[in-house]
Amino acid sequence: MRCITLTPVISQTIKCRAAVAWEAAKPLTIEDIEVAPPQAHEVRIKILYTGVCHTDYYTLSGKDSEGVFPVIFGHEGGGVVESVGEHVTNVAPGDHVIPLYTAECRECKFCKSGKTNLCGKVRATQGRGLMPDETSRFTCKGQQLFHYMGCSTFSEYTGTYSSFPVPKDLVRPVLNDCIISFSLPVKSPVVADVSVVKINPKAKLDSAALLGCGITTGFGAATRTAKVEEGSTVGRRECGCVGFGLVAIFGMGGVGLSVAQGARLNKASRIIAIDTNPKKEKLSREMGATDFVNPLDHSNTPIQQVLIDMTDGGLDYTFDCTGNVQVMRAALEACHKGWGQSIIIGVAAAGQEISTRPFQLVTGRVWKGSAFGGVKGRTELPGLVEDYMEGKIKIDELITHRFNLDDINLAFDAMHGGDCIRSVISFQ
Amino acid sequence: MRCITLTPVISQTIKCRAAVAWEAAKPLTIEDIEVAPPQAHEVRIKILYTGVCHTDYYTLSGKDSEGVFPVIFGHEGGGVVESVGEHVTNVAPGDHVIPLYTAECRECKFCKSGKTNLCGKVRATQGRGLMPDETSRFTCKGQQLFHYMGCSTFSEYTGTYSSFPVPKDLVRPVLNDCIISFSLPVKSPVVADVSVVKINPKAKLDSAALLGCGITTGFGAATRTAKVEEGSTVGRRECGCVGFGLVAIFGMGGVGLSVAQGARLNKASRIIAIDTNPKKEKLSREMGATDFVNPLDHSNTPIQQVLIDMTDGGLDYTFDCTGNVQVMRAALEACHKGWGQSIIIGVAAAGQEISTRPFQLVTGRVWKGSAFGGVKGRTELPGLVEDYMEGKIKIDELITHRFNLDDINLAFDAMHGGDCIRSVISFQ
Repeated sequence: MRCITLTPVISQTIKCRAAVAWEAAKPLTIEDIEVAPPQAHEVRIKILYTGVCHTDYYTLSGKDSEGVFPVIFGHEGGGVVESVGEHVTNVAPGDHVIPLYTAECRECKFCKSGKTNLCGKVRATQGRGLMPDETSRFTCKGQQLFHYMGCSTFSEYTGTYSSFPVPKDLVRPVLNDCIISFSLPVKSPVVADVSVVKINPKAKLDSAALLGCGITTGFGAATRTAKVEEGSTVGRRECGCVGFGLVAIFGMGGVGLSVAQGARLNKASRIIAIDTNPKKEKLSREMGATDFVNPLDHSNTPIQQVLIDMTDGGLDYTFDCTGNVQVMRAALEACHKGWGQSIIIGVAAAGQEISTRPFQLVTGRVWKGSAFGGVKGRTELPGLVEDYMEGKIKIDELITHRFNLDDINLAFDAMHGGDCIRSVISFQ
Repeated sequence: MRCITLTPVISQTIKCRAAVAWEAAKPLTIEDIEVAPPQAHEVRIKILYTGVCHTDYYTLSGKDSEGVFPVIFGHEGGGVVESVGEHVTNVAPGDHVIPLYTAECRECKFCKSGKTNLCGKVRATQGRGLMPDETSRFTCKGQQLFHYMGCSTFSEYTGTYSSFPVPKDLVRPVLNDCIISFSLPVKSPVVADVSVVKINPKAKLDSAALLGCGITTGFGAATRTAKVEEGSTVGRRECGCVGFGLVAIFGMGGVGLSVAQGARLNKASRIIAIDTNPKKEKLSREMGATDFVNPLDHSNTPIQQVLIDMTDGGLDYTFDCTGNVQVMRAALEACHKGWGQSIIIGVAAAGQEISTRPFQLVTGRVWKGSAFGGVKGRTELPGLVEDYMEGKIKIDELITHRFNLDDINLAFDAMHGGDCIRSVISFQ
């Protein structure tokens, strides 16, 4: 056990700048805000970079039934721990971290199941824009601002929670006097941290930040949720052998491109990228796609039929990265009878539903979904950062736009311009 | 290799009795029909018993878009091989067999995949009511009758196909002169038989016949498709541990009761049977159900919510055995977030669709289906017959009605009477 003594917990309110969404469907405004000190089991992070994701836009648009205002959006960030509250054991000031909108408490039935990366511990308060104690750390002009997805990375400083109340008999007096670093052997799951993960400080943080959502979501959907298998199309077609490496991806934004990367890493034999924007072809191929199909080129044939015809009966894996329920249906129905799996990644608008004939499932297709790529943030994200540093996951290539905080609304505009994969906002 | 010499292949047309469906939505009529001799790779079977399944009724009703008339229904039968065509190697006259509506050729990409029990070899002709050579073996009053699901067990004699053309260089002259028994070592998959399986002749054939569809469909859905895991409800609720043994079954007919049996054999901790007919409770509990829920007793609460409340968040596995698309939705939505799987077994009416919010899948529920319980007929059915003989699978208890062929329409009436699980028609 290493104890950095003489480092008292800093407990001052910080004034800083943030992009505030006062109401739905209006541009964000840059405001001076106050960020309260971290409470017990909470962490305050100096955000250095944040991505801008379609989910931010979706909630900003007002279509998200869980959306609350005023709020500080952003959930794909990277930063440095500024201070920690009492009983925080796994991160310390100065650590490079990524906040996690999918927590990992390691003690709830979800975390213990071994079958999901979802965590039930903070879901209720996070969904209402609050910290676990039902309050917010943000104020602006005397008004409370809500947190967003437990991250709120559109702020120079943000608060997140890292762990849960420790039973009194486990609290050692030393905890109030020093920061216990990550090398503390944690034997009891009740002191586990939940919504923040320390990463390699040598990683380029502007790129690593994007592992906080989009890149991990796509890459994990291919490698964790679908577990794409190595395969050989040629084999299946020509000698009757079966290869399970036929992949189709609907929507070639940052998520879809990361699905392609995951499928390539898993040695998929054929990766068909599908997008109505022909500008996406070049990058799709660079990220692993072997084919590019523009549905607009096949306006007389449903895209599922186009794909079935291309693949001797359908895909082994399909991924929806569009959030469009009609595309989700096409993705399912493009799957091969008997074993094809379709993974829904995109977030559909409130109230929209997916449909298909049940015969599609009875004949062996599987319909599932993926959130944060099935990745357990605290356990697996450091490894994905290493994969990035080793070149196994490409991120730099997906950053097409960069803005300062003052210009964050331009990032939302760029998202819909057709040339943007990912915008990164710099706070430096 | 054992060669029963001096047993020439019998190649005479047989006149016998069968229940003929001349048109949709009309009672069957018992007719004298002709059954042509088996052609190469075909088997003619003397049917001794057949079950009557909802799928027969569904096609008879006229709602099945693939239904063709006139036809001989029935696909859940047991009998004895009467004669075989040339090149049949795995069954011989006298063998007790079950015809398979889900073939197993062992050479198509489905059979070779290791991921499905579906077989693509005879699907096209079987779906059109014909033998693989595009003709029928049945005639009545000079008119051709269609086959049904490759089985047509509502006939004293029926024809099915057992294997595929052997390349000429593999055909030995001896084949035309004797019946090669099942002990012939089969080295080339091209001589594999596809739509019939030999079973233990000591098995009670009236019960074993029901393994030809309903019992296997339910039992296999639990043990093969879902692979229900042993679990402990108490554990999950009281100490935070996770048990994966929470099962709910919608529709407690012969299929649903067999799901219960499979779940019990796999040591599910809780098996909730759901049916609007309270008469189903007793047998449900005898087949393994630990709870019985009548949705009509909860008319103010959606059944999925009733089940979620009963199970601390939802089921690990749910099974639809109703064919009702609203029930299929309820079954999915009753699943536990993160890992719950819902298996569609029931056949929905033509044109009907399943729907749900995609969020149900994104948060970890899996929607899949099962046909013939995921069981490979030729490989696995003999083992299920042994399971029946050893008491692991109960079948006798599910036979509530028995009729002679002349009274087969009463079996369809009984199906809708509320007291019937399975009717068996005897030809003896």
